[in-house]
Amino acid sequence: MKISHIEHLGIAVKSLDEAIPYYENILGLKCYAIEEVADQKVKTAFFKVGQTKLELLESTTEDGTIAGFIEKRGEGIHHMAFAIEDGVQNALDEVQAKEVRAIDKAPRRGAEGLDIAFLHPKSTHGVLTELCEKGK
Amino acid sequence: MKISHIEHLGIAVKSLDEAIPYYENILGLKCYAIEEVADQKVKTAFFKVGQTKLELLESTTEDGTIAGFIEKRGEGIHHMAFAIEDGVQNALDEVQAKEVRAIDKAPRRGAEGLDIAFLHPKSTHGVLTELCEKGK
Repeated sequence: MKISHIEHLGIAVKSLDEAIPYYENILGLKCYAIEEVADQKVKTAFFKVGQTKLELLESTTEDGTIAGFIEKRGEGIHHMAFAIEDGVQNALDEVQAKEVRAIDKAPRRGAEGLDIAFLHPKSTHGVLTELCEKGK
Repeated sequence: MKISHIEHLGIAVKSLDEAIPYYENILGLKCYAIEEVADQKVKTAFFKVGQTKLELLESTTEDGTIAGFIEKRGEGIHHMAFAIEDGVQNALDEVQAKEVRAIDKAPRRGAEGLDIAFLHPKSTHGVLTELCEKGK
């Protein structure tokens, strides 16, 4: 697979209302979008830092993945997403042939209209890894 | 403070020898340097992904920060480092005036000759945050 850059970092927070002021007033970044991804049971806030977005993730439900992550480990970086130049499906096929465990067997639609797929942290030395490309 | 981009991500791994092949053979990245930072009791391996480096961190001691992190949470993303355009000392002064807790009160020398300082995750919504600039 060809990775061009880190597309975004997913950061789990308890509350967007509490976290956004830190990113804006302390770090001097600007929240340019807030989006709810119903499918993933999260509300997201986006910031741009050079090539990479920071995507704050607040759970919209008590039993979602992000709620579980925070309960277990507290707020913090949840996943790292690579921008894939030669296609997410191609990358999935390639890594699975090398016995890397993929959570998604085919790309699905994520925030900002990207096609995404996750690799399992058991196969990636602990980093929940997302592969993404602009949706067609 | 003015952040230009994500300088690097620090990723805690048990063993560079085991993790490097994943980054090279599965993700297709290239390890361009290995460096021991005696001060921080780590051995680091560097990869470039667009503007950002991935810095794998292996503890060189059983009681170091990285060893403790892995014991508690397993391998995974340890910290996020921002490249600061207007000086790390300036950024430290600024955030401390806003009651953000800094681990370092003044910049110190890190890997690759950068001047670095860490902010405490208790003040940054759970993300251990490093500020860095090219050393003078």
